[in-house]
Amino acid sequence: MAAPEAFETLKTRLAQVTDLGRVRRVLGWDMQVMMPPAGAGVRGEQQATLDRISFDLFVSPETERLLEELSSYEESLDPESDDASLIRVARKDYEKAARIPPELRTEMVKAATEGFMAWRQAKPENDYDAFRPFLEHHLELRRRYVELFPEADEPYDVLLDDYERGMKTADVRAVFDRLKEELVPLVGEAAELYGEDDGTLGRSFPADQQEALSREIIELFGHREGAFRLDPTVHPFASGGGIDDIRITTKYEPTGLESFFATMHEYGHGLYEHQIARELDRTPLGGGVSLGLHESQSRMWENLVGRSRPFWRFMYPRVQSNFAPLLDDVDEETFFRAVNRVQPSLIRIAADEVTYNMHVILRFELEQDLLSGKVDLKDLPEEWNRRMDSYLGVEVPDNAHGVLQDMHWGTGTIGYFPTYSLGNVMSVQIWERIKDDIPDLDDKLERGEFAPLREWLGEHIHRHGRKFLPQETLERATGSRIDPEPYLRYLKDKHGAATPA
Amino acid sequence: MAAPEAFETLKTRLAQVTDLGRVRRVLGWDMQVMMPPAGAGVRGEQQATLDRISFDLFVSPETERLLEELSSYEESLDPESDDASLIRVARKDYEKAARIPPELRTEMVKAATEGFMAWRQAKPENDYDAFRPFLEHHLELRRRYVELFPEADEPYDVLLDDYERGMKTADVRAVFDRLKEELVPLVGEAAELYGEDDGTLGRSFPADQQEALSREIIELFGHREGAFRLDPTVHPFASGGGIDDIRITTKYEPTGLESFFATMHEYGHGLYEHQIARELDRTPLGGGVSLGLHESQSRMWENLVGRSRPFWRFMYPRVQSNFAPLLDDVDEETFFRAVNRVQPSLIRIAADEVTYNMHVILRFELEQDLLSGKVDLKDLPEEWNRRMDSYLGVEVPDNAHGVLQDMHWGTGTIGYFPTYSLGNVMSVQIWERIKDDIPDLDDKLERGEFAPLREWLGEHIHRHGRKFLPQETLERATGSRIDPEPYLRYLKDKHGAATPA
Repeated sequence: MAAPEAFETLKTRLAQVTDLGRVRRVLGWDMQVMMPPAGAGVRGEQQATLDRISFDLFVSPETERLLEELSSYEESLDPESDDASLIRVARKDYEKAARIPPELRTEMVKAATEGFMAWRQAKPENDYDAFRPFLEHHLELRRRYVELFPEADEPYDVLLDDYERGMKTADVRAVFDRLKEELVPLVGEAAELYGEDDGTLGRSFPADQQEALSREIIELFGHREGAFRLDPTVHPFASGGGIDDIRITTKYEPTGLESFFATMHEYGHGLYEHQIARELDRTPLGGGVSLGLHESQSRMWENLVGRSRPFWRFMYPRVQSNFAPLLDDVDEETFFRAVNRVQPSLIRIAADEVTYNMHVILRFELEQDLLSGKVDLKDLPEEWNRRMDSYLGVEVPDNAHGVLQDMHWGTGTIGYFPTYSLGNVMSVQIWERIKDDIPDLDDKLERGEFAPLREWLGEHIHRHGRKFLPQETLERATGSRIDPEPYLRYLKDKHGAATPA
Repeated sequence: MAAPEAFETLKTRLAQVTDLGRVRRVLGWDMQVMMPPAGAGVRGEQQATLDRISFDLFVSPETERLLEELSSYEESLDPESDDASLIRVARKDYEKAARIPPELRTEMVKAATEGFMAWRQAKPENDYDAFRPFLEHHLELRRRYVELFPEADEPYDVLLDDYERGMKTADVRAVFDRLKEELVPLVGEAAELYGEDDGTLGRSFPADQQEALSREIIELFGHREGAFRLDPTVHPFASGGGIDDIRITTKYEPTGLESFFATMHEYGHGLYEHQIARELDRTPLGGGVSLGLHESQSRMWENLVGRSRPFWRFMYPRVQSNFAPLLDDVDEETFFRAVNRVQPSLIRIAADEVTYNMHVILRFELEQDLLSGKVDLKDLPEEWNRRMDSYLGVEVPDNAHGVLQDMHWGTGTIGYFPTYSLGNVMSVQIWERIKDDIPDLDDKLERGEFAPLREWLGEHIHRHGRKFLPQETLERATGSRIDPEPYLRYLKDKHGAATPA
C-alpha cells in the first residue's frame, strides 16, 4: 500500500511540531548558558508563545482527523516500520496531550516558572516555609492532572508515564525493593573497601585545564565532526537543536574533577541523540525514548566506562599530563580508588555509584506519600531528614543540603527521579550484552578504542529513537525487560566485601 | 473612543508574531556564533518552520479582518499615538507580506541558511565557483520576488524597500552621485593628509587584551545592567532577543584594532534596539525603523565619537594602559592619525571613513547589474576587481579579499548595502543637530561622559522604534530628510586638503 496523501500531510505537521520543540530546546540552552540575565522576562513570553503554537498545531481536530484516516494504512504496514511507528507513537502522544485542558496546561507551565524562582530563592536561604506554598500548588495541579487518567492502577503511574512511557509504579517498586535489600548492607562494605578519603580529589584543579580535559575526552569518545559543543553552566545538562547539533555543559569547581565525570555523563546523553537514525529526524520518533534509557547511556559513559580499571589504565597518564605537575605524586591505583570511593553523603548529584540509588529511592517514596497526602507538606523536611538517617546514616544539617537541594520539585517535576536509578539498572543489563558481543571490550577500552562501543550503542539502541516503547527498546537490545540483578552483581563485584581491593 | 476588543485581539496576534521574529534573531545569532557547524541543515528547516508559522499567523484572513475592523478606531486617534501607529504600520507590513507566496518565502529562508554555509566554506578557500550556484539561486528567487511588485519604478526599488521603507533607488542614486563626485578627489587629498602608514596599527595586539578593551568601551558607553553580551565571530553584527537582551559581536585579528572599532559600531546598533520604548515591546513597532537609520547609529559611535579628537583625549591613556607596554612609544597624535588614516584598501569593513562609501557604491551598482543580468555571474569576480581598480585604484589579489569578502550575498541579501552609506550620511545630519542641542558635547566626550549623547539619541530617535517611516523619523530628529551636504562638509573638514593636519 503506497503512503496516502494524509500521511505526508501528517508528517509535515509533525515536522513543524518537532522543529518548534527543538527550537525550545536551543532557547532553553541559551537561557542557561548564554542569555544576558536581563533578557529573562521577554524570553519567558517567547517560550510561552512557542509552546502555545506548538500545542495548537499538534492538538487540533486536523491531527485527529489525519490519525483516524491513517488507521488502515497503519494496519497495512509492518509495525516495526518507520511509517507505522510514526503513526502509532503520534497517536499515543496525541491521546495523552488531548486529555489535558489547555487551562491546566497553561497553569502548570506558569507554576513551573514561579515555583522555580521561589525554589531558587528559598534554597540558599534554607527557607522551606517560603517554598512550601509553591510545592502545595504543584501537588494540587498534579492531582488534577492525575484525575484525567482514571484508568491508571495508581495515581503515581500517571506522572511516571510522562517520563518512562509504559512503566508502572509497581514495576519500579519491585526493582527498588531489590536494590534497597542489597544496597543498605553494601554501603557499609564498600565504604571500607576503598578506605578513608585521602584528599586526592580535594586538590585545586585549574579551570582551564579541567576544560581542556573535558574537550579531550569528548574527542576521544568520538562523534561526527563539527557536531558537538561544550560550555560551562551552573547545573550540567545536555541539549541541542538536532542530531548534528549536540550541546553538552559541565561545571568547573575550584577543586575536584566532578566536571570530568559530568562531561562523560552528558556525552552519553548527547551521543544518544547524535546517533538516532537520520530518517527519524524531524519526526516525533527522533529523540531518546525515555529518561530512563537516556540515563542508562549517560551513566554507562560516566561509570561503566569512566570509573572502570581499563579506562583509567588508558586515561590516567593523559590526566596526569593534562594537570602536570599536580598529580605527579599520585599513582594510578590511588587515583582509581579516589574516583570510586563510596561514602554516604548528603547531596544526590555528588553521590557515588552505590549510595546514589538510595537518594533516588527516598525521593520516589516521598513523592508517592506527598501525592497521596500520607506525608503532610509541613512535615516534609523532618520526614526527609528521618529517612536520610535511616537509609544512609547521615544527618542533614539544613534544608539546602536536604529537601531543597534539587530543582525538580521547584518546577513541579514529580515522577522524574526514579528514572535516574532505572537508568543505572538498565545500563548494566546493556553492558553485559555488549560484553557478550564484544568479548575484548576491556582490552579495547584500555587502548582507548571507543568506536566499537559507540557503534554498538548506535546500532542496538540509539538509532531506534522513540520507535518502540522504552522496555521494548531495552528488550530488543538485551533480550529482557528491566531486571535489577545484573546491576546488583556489578555493584557487589566492584564494591562488595569479597572484592580484591 | 475606547480601544475595541478587536484591537486587543490584533495586539495579541502581533505579539506572537513579534515573539517568533525575536526567536529567529536569537537563532540567527546562535547560528553564527555558537551552533556546531554540522547543525546547519536542520537549523535551516527550523528557521523555515518558524518563518512559515509566523507568516501564516500574520498573513491570514483574520489579520486582514481585524485591520479592516479597526479602520474607524485608527481614524479616531492621534496618528502619532502608539495605537494608531501600530495599526498603520501593521497594515503596511501586511500589505507587503500578503503579496508573497508562502512557497517563495520558505524557499528564500532555506536558501539563506544554505547559502550562508556555502559562503562560509568558500571564502577561506577562495572558491567563488563553489559559491556561484548559491548566488545564482538567490538571484532567481529575488527576480521572482521583484515581479510581485510590478508598480515599482525599477526592480531594485523592491529589494531596497525591505531595508529602507519608502526610499527609492533613484533617491539613493542622487545621494551616491553627489558622494562620488566629491569623494574621488577627496581620497587623494586625505591620503596625503595623514601621511604614509607608520605601522602603528600593524602591531600584534593580543586577542585577550583586545577583548578586554572591547568590554571596557561597552561599559564606558553604557547600558542597563545585565542586558548586553559580546562574543567573537567571523563577521561582526548585532542581534538579540529583546530590548534587554542585546548581543554584539566582533572579530579579534592578530594585528590592528579593528575589533575595537567594530565593537563601537555594533554597540551603536545594540543601543538603538536597547532604547526603544518599553511600551512598544512585543509589537511590530518595537525595532529599529530601517537599516539606514540603524547604520547612522553604529557609524556615529564608531566614527563621529570613536575617531574624534575629544574621544581619543579621553580614551588613549586607557588604550595604552590596556596594551601596556605595547603602545608606550606611541603618542596620542600619532595614534589619532593612525586610526584616521585614509588609504584605499580591499576590505569594506576595514575601510576608512572616506573610502568606505566607494566600497558601498560599487556593491550598489553591481547588485543592480546582477539583478538585471547586465553582469553575468561567471564574470562577477573580474567585474568586481575591475571596478575596485577603477574606484579605489587597488588590485584584488583573491576572491576572499574581493567578491567573497561579505556575508550578505551568502544569505541572498541584496538591496542592503546602500543603507550603509545612507547611514553615514544621516549620522552627520543627526550629529549636527545634537551639537546644537548639546553645545559642549566635545567637552563631555573628552571627559568620558557619554550619557548625554546616549540619552539624546534615546529621546529623539530610538524610543520611536518603527512608529514613523525612516525619513519621517530623521526629519523629526533633525528637521530635514536625507541630505548628503552635512556629511560631505564633515568629511572635507576632517580629511580635506584645507584641514590643518
